Amino acid sequence: MAVALTILTDPRGTDARRELALPPATSILAAAHAAGIDVTATCGGRGRCTSCRVKFVAGAVPPPTIGDEVQLGDALVREGYRLACQCQPTEAVTVQVAPPLEETSFQILGAGAGVAGRVRIDSGVDKQLLKISLPHEEHHQTSDLEELAAAVGIAAADVPAGVLAGLPQALRDDPAGVTVTSFAGRILAVERGDTTSMRFGLAIDVGTTSVVTTLLELTSGEQLASVSSLNPQAVFGADLMSRIAFAQFNPGNLRKLRTRILGLLNQHVAEVCRASGVLPKWVYKVVVVGNTCMHHVLLGIDPSHVGLAPYAPVMRHALTLAAHELFLKIAPEARVCFLPIVAGFVGADAVAVALATHLDEGDALRMAVDIGTNGEVLLGSSARLIACSAPAGPAFEGGQIRHGMRGAHGAIDRVTVDDDVRVHTIGEADPLGICGSGLLDLVAGLLDAGAIDWTGLIQVEGRDALPPALRDRVVMRGEERQVVVLRPGEAGAGREIVLTQDDVRQLQLAKGAIASGIAMLQHVAGVAAERVAELLLAGGFGNYLSIASAVRIGLIPDLGAGRVRYVGNAASLGAQLCLLSEPERARADALARRIEHVSLAAHPDFEQIFVDCMNFPRP
Amino acid sequence: MAVALTILTDPRGTDARRELALPPATSILAAAHAAGIDVTATCGGRGRCTSCRVKFVAGAVPPPTIGDEVQLGDALVREGYRLACQCQPTEAVTVQVAPPLEETSFQILGAGAGVAGRVRIDSGVDKQLLKISLPHEEHHQTSDLEELAAAVGIAAADVPAGVLAGLPQALRDDPAGVTVTSFAGRILAVERGDTTSMRFGLAIDVGTTSVVTTLLELTSGEQLASVSSLNPQAVFGADLMSRIAFAQFNPGNLRKLRTRILGLLNQHVAEVCRASGVLPKWVYKVVVVGNTCMHHVLLGIDPSHVGLAPYAPVMRHALTLAAHELFLKIAPEARVCFLPIVAGFVGADAVAVALATHLDEGDALRMAVDIGTNGEVLLGSSARLIACSAPAGPAFEGGQIRHGMRGAHGAIDRVTVDDDVRVHTIGEADPLGICGSGLLDLVAGLLDAGAIDWTGLIQVEGRDALPPALRDRVVMRGEERQVVVLRPGEAGAGREIVLTQDDVRQLQLAKGAIASGIAMLQHVAGVAAERVAELLLAGGFGNYLSIASAVRIGLIPDLGAGRVRYVGNAASLGAQLCLLSEPERARADALARRIEHVSLAAHPDFEQIFVDCMNFPRP
Repeated sequence: MAVALTILTDPRGTDARRELALPPATSILAAAHAAGIDVTATCGGRGRCTSCRVKFVAGAVPPPTIGDEVQLGDALVREGYRLACQCQPTEAVTVQVAPPLEETSFQILGAGAGVAGRVRIDSGVDKQLLKISLPHEEHHQTSDLEELAAAVGIAAADVPAGVLAGLPQALRDDPAGVTVTSFAGRILAVERGDTTSMRFGLAIDVGTTSVVTTLLELTSGEQLASVSSLNPQAVFGADLMSRIAFAQFNPGNLRKLRTRILGLLNQHVAEVCRASGVLPKWVYKVVVVGNTCMHHVLLGIDPSHVGLAPYAPVMRHALTLAAHELFLKIAPEARVCFLPIVAGFVGADAVAVALATHLDEGDALRMAVDIGTNGEVLLGSSARLIACSAPAGPAFEGGQIRHGMRGAHGAIDRVTVDDDVRVHTIGEADPLGICGSGLLDLVAGLLDAGAIDWTGLIQVEGRDALPPALRDRVVMRGEERQVVVLRPGEAGAGREIVLTQDDVRQLQLAKGAIASGIAMLQHVAGVAAERVAELLLAGGFGNYLSIASAVRIGLIPDLGAGRVRYVGNAASLGAQLCLLSEPERARADALARRIEHVSLAAHPDFEQIFVDCMNFPRP
Repeated sequence: MAVALTILTDPRGTDARRELALPPATSILAAAHAAGIDVTATCGGRGRCTSCRVKFVAGAVPPPTIGDEVQLGDALVREGYRLACQCQPTEAVTVQVAPPLEETSFQILGAGAGVAGRVRIDSGVDKQLLKISLPHEEHHQTSDLEELAAAVGIAAADVPAGVLAGLPQALRDDPAGVTVTSFAGRILAVERGDTTSMRFGLAIDVGTTSVVTTLLELTSGEQLASVSSLNPQAVFGADLMSRIAFAQFNPGNLRKLRTRILGLLNQHVAEVCRASGVLPKWVYKVVVVGNTCMHHVLLGIDPSHVGLAPYAPVMRHALTLAAHELFLKIAPEARVCFLPIVAGFVGADAVAVALATHLDEGDALRMAVDIGTNGEVLLGSSARLIACSAPAGPAFEGGQIRHGMRGAHGAIDRVTVDDDVRVHTIGEADPLGICGSGLLDLVAGLLDAGAIDWTGLIQVEGRDALPPALRDRVVMRGEERQVVVLRPGEAGAGREIVLTQDDVRQLQLAKGAIASGIAMLQHVAGVAAERVAELLLAGGFGNYLSIASAVRIGLIPDLGAGRVRYVGNAASLGAQLCLLSEPERARADALARRIEHVSLAAHPDFEQIFVDCMNFPRP
């Protein structure tokens, strides 16, 4: 029998509440999601993080599960916290949701500098002003559309139905004439009067964690506005596998994921258009990049089998749809171009990175590393181009780290370790937690100081060799090794901030994924690091990390000064290139066919390489 | 300032009510429609009928307008009735809506006998069962879609995105294989298992007054189920001009019209599928016919200019869309084929009539008359085919007739006049009013009896020459000439049922429109009635009228016995032919190009012919 579940939905403690009937054997998380209540589940509801924790405020608190104890720790369990994903109450209870991850002022990488100077502009979107005089006599057997088609010089049947709605007014209302917009021989819009100077497009990069939308003027290539947000699907799972698990064989959940991203894209459209005074109906072309899962979900395609061996995508070719088919609130017949896909975990974003970095040109071997929740590594030259996925997971974004947080206001983003630990926070604010770049610096510094050894073990036993201030931070609590980064009050910290042994393991897994991707591509190509002329760091996190720290922990190989370079959000830049240039979009097609996918897990040498890469480099 | 308006929405008198704020200078009808309350406005809110009347039950009753007095008469005005379209209260009032027109058991013409035996079946919908073995190794760079496309033998890019949703499951779940449905080289659906025997289609006839949907099996051509309903747009206007006026330059109202018809079509789909045990996803082809205005509204195209000289349609060519673009709940990629249009008032329905009657074949001149609210007349042979519209208005449906009603239970549908008036009702029920066929019989009988003269005047002055029983029925009340068809209690009538002078004038206008269309086509073709080998009566009303009465009042010419024939709902039959046969659908295209539109109003001789046709034939 269902039991009454009351959820206090406002983490700030106001009285906002929802009353639900909780069916038997249903978790609080599942019931909340079914009712449309946002409870964040970074791990996708698998008991592997703390984001869905709720506090019991009325009714019997159920006994803690293993998951509660491991993830939440004794103190929170005693205070009445439980993981909503693990907890299936059998009598009436009231729970309060916890505050979501801090999301304000999150340093999401924007679109980066524009690409206007880097490409000859040839967007394919054409506008022409026509004067069409309609016959006034009834005996003419004709129609508005036939008169228009004759003036433009195409067949009436080739005009999409979507432009018919406003046709009668457009043809009659303005003495200046009508403006006809076309793309690849297809009429996209018919507008009254002269709007020939209004030609805009959007480049959209849908990442697992963040979504970036950029508005460009299609004549000059000028970047008018850019907006970025966290991907609102994250509430259903922080990484791709969690999200695929959420949607797997569950059309209702797939719809939820899709609705969220489509809703966000329309918010983005409204925002960039408002910011730049552009009417959404003047946006005629959109280029979308994203990994295979994001691509499939956006199109409403079941991604279940992308998550199951052999990880085949449902489709790979470049696809162009009308905006109304995606419910995008721009010109209804605007063309939305999805770049092609290489494989289940090497998506259109990787193609866009290859395009923007011109990795396929020149004799020198170069490497591009897109560090993200679902990272990709590409290696190549004009001779050959290979790629693999490197699923780092959310650790670089602060996920699954005890006091981890995203790169938001108050996050420790830079750490120096000398005789003690010294921190810098984003916005110089009181520290709230550690974000990815701070975590890299911290672990790199602790490695150099000898507080962590090359296997990743926190050196509680050897701490006496450390400087006294540092030594006092290396502690054993119960059975857990910790480094106390900040004690309550230090540097303004409101609570203790620690690095746990498990946090170090999470970082090792994450950096091991990227590093083994890099190592495997070198292995497959048969080249040592020395032969890699340049390593390009792309993607959100890739642009904030310290290269020295990244090399120190073995995230990237030590190529020597000047051979590692930040290239910004290369996926978005690739989308912008395709937006401004149809030849570039054609090149993306050719690139997708050229890129060879290296499947890591299927390779006989992978296991050994991965294990090696999980360790830190010995000094 | 807005005033409070309370509408008692249930004409049966329950307490159901809606409270609205009525803005200044807004009619009760406009406010009700804006709030989504169904108040029937047969004339489109132009004060020309009584269908939107409301009764004031609280608050000050406003003084009657001219419209109230003319349309409602003294008695109803005194009882507190007013026309909602004319009334703009300036203080708080409560009004009750009047009962809508009787709609139960309305004799809407169904689809008629099937066309299965009349055409070689070649629907274009093909199904094939395929077995596709997907690669199991990760290093294959492929996708589900590419494997499917290779098996079918087409390019992946030619598969519409809509079929991708279910592709992964379909390819993996059933050992029998997958069934691929295609139409004209385009994949419409991919289904798991063997569904090759499931192939269905719909023929839809969207008339101004009634909508008929027929489900056919596409292998045998068998007609499985048919359903017909009143067009729910009628609440916003009974005839085309009223509906165009409602939607004119008002996108919100256009959307209302569109929503209503799309909603009804989905009801029809559900009904015919349920009745025949067919899953809607097995419906892959639809053929739609309708007049130009219905066609435009269904597609969301602004019909404003169809109602303004020179009455040009926005488009005319045959258009094929995917079902999901029309929100039709069948296979999402099912092809919905709209037949082509000839002119603003000669639509795809006329083309379908020409197709079904084979009017363009043979040497003999034949004529097809589709009698409806918006009628059409076609005349032709293999040499030439001409057509015109004949806007009869709603009189044949009982509209704008004092005691008129649709052909529903209780309607007087047959009348004999000898020494008195004798009536028959539909369902042998107590008479409630007169429907179109009864009206024709009644006027024909009164003409023969001499109670109405050839100009249409009711012979009050000459009534003494009539048989006594009949004489007593011909009366002058105030300034109105009337024939009392039934006194209260006669033949079970609950109230008096009369034919007014104005009713006779309405019938003269309606029959004059059809008759002058017929006469004009003969005039343009230069042929007398004798040369017309056959006259085919089509359409809803055309199948219920008495041919003798129709000839007597001059609705159709007197061709002599056996040369006038009922052909059923020819528009729907034409749609069925195109559903079952692609060559027939191609023939519809050729026909639409061949049919010459004769514009009546633009012709110099029309006015004289129309005036002549309004009179009744002299005996």
